[in-house]
Amino acid sequence: MEYAAITHFADNRYCFALEPDRFLIRIRVKKGDMRRVILHTQDKYLPLERLDTRAAVPMSLAARDRVSDYYEAVITIHMVCLRYWFELEGVDGTRVYYGNYQFSTEPPTDIERMFDCPQNLRGEERFLAPAWAMDKVVYQIFPASFAPTGPVDARRWYGPLDHRVNPGGTLRGIIDHLGHLHKLGADVLYMTPVFKANTPHRYDTVDYFAVDPSLGTKEELRELVDSAHALGIRVLLDGVFNHTSQKFFAFADILEKKERSEYLDWYFIEGFPLRMAWGEKPNFKTFSYYGGMPKLNLRNPAVEAYFINVGLYWIRECGIDGWRLDVADEVGHRFWRRFREAVKAEKPDALIVGEEWHYGGDFLQGDQWDSVMNYPFYNSVLDLVARGTATVTEFFEDLGFLRGNLHPDVYHLLWNLIGSHDTARFLRAACGDRRRLKMASALQLLLPGMPMLYYGDEYAMDGGDNGDCRRGMVWDEARQDREMFAWISRLAALRHAHPCLTRGQAVAFTADDASGAVALTRRLDGETLTLLLHCGDGEAPFPAYAGREELISAAPFPGSLGPWEAAVVRG
Amino acid sequence: MEYAAITHFADNRYCFALEPDRFLIRIRVKKGDMRRVILHTQDKYLPLERLDTRAAVPMSLAARDRVSDYYEAVITIHMVCLRYWFELEGVDGTRVYYGNYQFSTEPPTDIERMFDCPQNLRGEERFLAPAWAMDKVVYQIFPASFAPTGPVDARRWYGPLDHRVNPGGTLRGIIDHLGHLHKLGADVLYMTPVFKANTPHRYDTVDYFAVDPSLGTKEELRELVDSAHALGIRVLLDGVFNHTSQKFFAFADILEKKERSEYLDWYFIEGFPLRMAWGEKPNFKTFSYYGGMPKLNLRNPAVEAYFINVGLYWIRECGIDGWRLDVADEVGHRFWRRFREAVKAEKPDALIVGEEWHYGGDFLQGDQWDSVMNYPFYNSVLDLVARGTATVTEFFEDLGFLRGNLHPDVYHLLWNLIGSHDTARFLRAACGDRRRLKMASALQLLLPGMPMLYYGDEYAMDGGDNGDCRRGMVWDEARQDREMFAWISRLAALRHAHPCLTRGQAVAFTADDASGAVALTRRLDGETLTLLLHCGDGEAPFPAYAGREELISAAPFPGSLGPWEAAVVRG
Repeated sequence: MEYAAITHFADNRYCFALEPDRFLIRIRVKKGDMRRVILHTQDKYLPLERLDTRAAVPMSLAARDRVSDYYEAVITIHMVCLRYWFELEGVDGTRVYYGNYQFSTEPPTDIERMFDCPQNLRGEERFLAPAWAMDKVVYQIFPASFAPTGPVDARRWYGPLDHRVNPGGTLRGIIDHLGHLHKLGADVLYMTPVFKANTPHRYDTVDYFAVDPSLGTKEELRELVDSAHALGIRVLLDGVFNHTSQKFFAFADILEKKERSEYLDWYFIEGFPLRMAWGEKPNFKTFSYYGGMPKLNLRNPAVEAYFINVGLYWIRECGIDGWRLDVADEVGHRFWRRFREAVKAEKPDALIVGEEWHYGGDFLQGDQWDSVMNYPFYNSVLDLVARGTATVTEFFEDLGFLRGNLHPDVYHLLWNLIGSHDTARFLRAACGDRRRLKMASALQLLLPGMPMLYYGDEYAMDGGDNGDCRRGMVWDEARQDREMFAWISRLAALRHAHPCLTRGQAVAFTADDASGAVALTRRLDGETLTLLLHCGDGEAPFPAYAGREELISAAPFPGSLGPWEAAVVRG
Repeated sequence: MEYAAITHFADNRYCFALEPDRFLIRIRVKKGDMRRVILHTQDKYLPLERLDTRAAVPMSLAARDRVSDYYEAVITIHMVCLRYWFELEGVDGTRVYYGNYQFSTEPPTDIERMFDCPQNLRGEERFLAPAWAMDKVVYQIFPASFAPTGPVDARRWYGPLDHRVNPGGTLRGIIDHLGHLHKLGADVLYMTPVFKANTPHRYDTVDYFAVDPSLGTKEELRELVDSAHALGIRVLLDGVFNHTSQKFFAFADILEKKERSEYLDWYFIEGFPLRMAWGEKPNFKTFSYYGGMPKLNLRNPAVEAYFINVGLYWIRECGIDGWRLDVADEVGHRFWRRFREAVKAEKPDALIVGEEWHYGGDFLQGDQWDSVMNYPFYNSVLDLVARGTATVTEFFEDLGFLRGNLHPDVYHLLWNLIGSHDTARFLRAACGDRRRLKMASALQLLLPGMPMLYYGDEYAMDGGDNGDCRRGMVWDEARQDREMFAWISRLAALRHAHPCLTRGQAVAFTADDASGAVALTRRLDGETLTLLLHCGDGEAPFPAYAGREELISAAPFPGSLGPWEAAVVRG
């Protein structure tokens, strides 16, 4: 048994309340190392002679990544403080007890030295996600490029975005096309920034309390939200609180009054005169090293209050359902804790999603964000489907890392994406192979998580990174890949109709790395469904499933899958 | 190489700012598994063609526990965000790269997929401990049993504490004996509760704004603090914010008005009538299951404000230097974050120390406590010195777990104790063997950490657990072990005079488990000192050190140590 791999911290990563009296306890061990893991528990304070509170609960394998297994047990308790330890039985026959970060080959006699889980502490800090968010499908819009109100120059519209030229998308255009989202099966709309700014991407905010005039008005934003709600679509805005534009009033004041500005402490100014020429490393903190986006000092209580107020203002004014937070991993935990408290006090079921390109465990413990843009998922799909640098086993193991190191509810809310306004489109990454885009969409829509579709992928739009992935939406039917739309909307419909697909318990899993064939069976409330994938070329036979009802095509399953094909069969 | 043991989380446990531009990065690996570990870093945003920011820093072995090694590097950066990954070279010749929780046998090409350390986020959350606390020695007093003002009944005074009878210690008595602390070498005084309460232990507070009349007055507490300060002694009070007594005004109101009380939400009441007979499990949350100590609901903003105000009041009124917090691990993180913010705003160098019987990593990341009562140290000393269940190697490895999983400054502030008002005295645990008490004191005073002496140990007082360890202080000279006082005061003086002993870099370490002989050499600012220990019976030869100056005895070192003897030699 590999002792050095055994990892448990009695904190919100590996020990937390699912409900006030229902706790999940998790331990990480070396992959394949254990025959059996048992969680032993006992009340911290009640002496055994008064009441024997001892219990022994078998733990089950909840996740596996490339090197580790994660065992979990869920227990119901009602006590002041839980005392617990683990009994591990290795496949090599070793038996060891692990408590309070120490090993013993004998069952523990000094219970004082075991792990502690104060029920009250963990209970009050539990992760409370908005119930509505489970099973939703997000659709991301880059507003300047989604839908114009009037006629546009088609050559410019369908070309790469030039960040000096506004292509002409408007809020009215989005309102007019909400039916498209609804038809596709998307029920959350996330728009990149809509506030007054200098560029079409609007990540350089000038006024956080005004809709950019080129997009429309505050009244139109309200109308957009109301119209979306009428279709069952929730709306999230993009909160750019890490930095502002130079024209934001506070930085403008610094530019004007220099050392005498009363807003010096709103930013991180390291000296005057300010160095801000293009290509110079600025002498004030910025997003990236771009002087045009000075970084805010959110530790300043006045700045904190200002941006929390922005967070509340648009909920109150336009009824939005939450925030996606830009560059959120470069903003401090304190600000996000306070932002969450204020936003949830205003609208308890608001959804808060951070931009974080990595595993964001320390933001996802219940007191900051509800979810993140799941770029680890994006990387895993690229590796498996676009680049062929990962096997199917490795793909599922990479997802296992997230499942094993996050609250299970957070895992179901991760914004699984296969591309965004910050990446090349998936089709481009897959060298134009539509079959692979279909497979990536299947992984996105048929696995646990909250799929985030990037506008236009449903018509197989192409585009590289930078502005090229922000081309105008293809409303011209001649440019639309209708079959792709049918595929994605069908997957979204299946996902909505069959929670078993994403929330069912995995009861069987086989993966053949040589052929890229996967069969994953889940069960929920009496329904049993098997997701079949073929991540490879040639034909992959699945004879055991031949003739069963296949849900995507609504036809009997022929018994095999062609290259990069996916299927969902009953049973 | 054991991949499954390799552990790094890009959070405040394994990646943090020591200063705004100075970062410590740590990785945990299997013990003895690595030949070399290298930290690779690069600016997240600056493209290499603009400026090549790549660096490769060798990491050094900073700590070892029973199963793991902890490698660290300290780097100086000034950038928006650091990107980093590890290169690990195993003793078996394997070489692997680890970034963003993934392994690769090739050097990474996609830097986007490496670990991220946003400088601003980590920098603003850095752990800032009061500078004065480094190298201090704490002395814990149980006020009712320390020093009476007038004559007392000697039989009762020197017997076990009966919790229904106040033995008669007073603040005046403590003031009169501050010279004793000073002579001993203690420069921080921690008193268990002094506020108005029902019992001599006073953990059942009735009035948080009043000194218990049997102890004295608020003016006397102020005089005590002033007198201590005049001797260079800081004073900490005991903050019992987890629970109150039943006679505290809010609970008294509930007892009187029941369902109609406006203080219902100050506690966790689960129903009426309240079940509070002795032996009954109460239907309201309590400390332990003792109805006499109802648990406070610190999530209630009114309760939070009330107890933060208590925290500030005694700083303002009496000039105390900080708080020791009772049952602090059963109180939520949110309260402690706000408590810290308020206390540090009032007195930036206040010291905040939590009671936590375990590794308290999630309270010690810079935003809650500065330190904890180090019960893991207590357990390790018991195992090595009193029970003989650990070897010298295991003892140092158990300390290594704390060093490897905490901020290095926190490690130097941990309240290393060998007994407290909540345990049997060390002498009792060691079955009366004075040599072992001397060894335990040497470990406490000559190793890194903040020693917390328990009143009376310096005279080798005896006592079991519960009230028996709270006997009256032996002011009767016939009862005093003067040699023990000389030993402990000498160690404290050495500790103060030679920061090398505790803060010097360990440059050599040998431990012989068969004999229990240890030699630990540290170096600081040109001074080199070796701590020699003999944790065992018989004679342990240290011929290499014979004839060198021995600092405890101020005589040449004879070349060997008898059973349970310790020495400090130059060089």
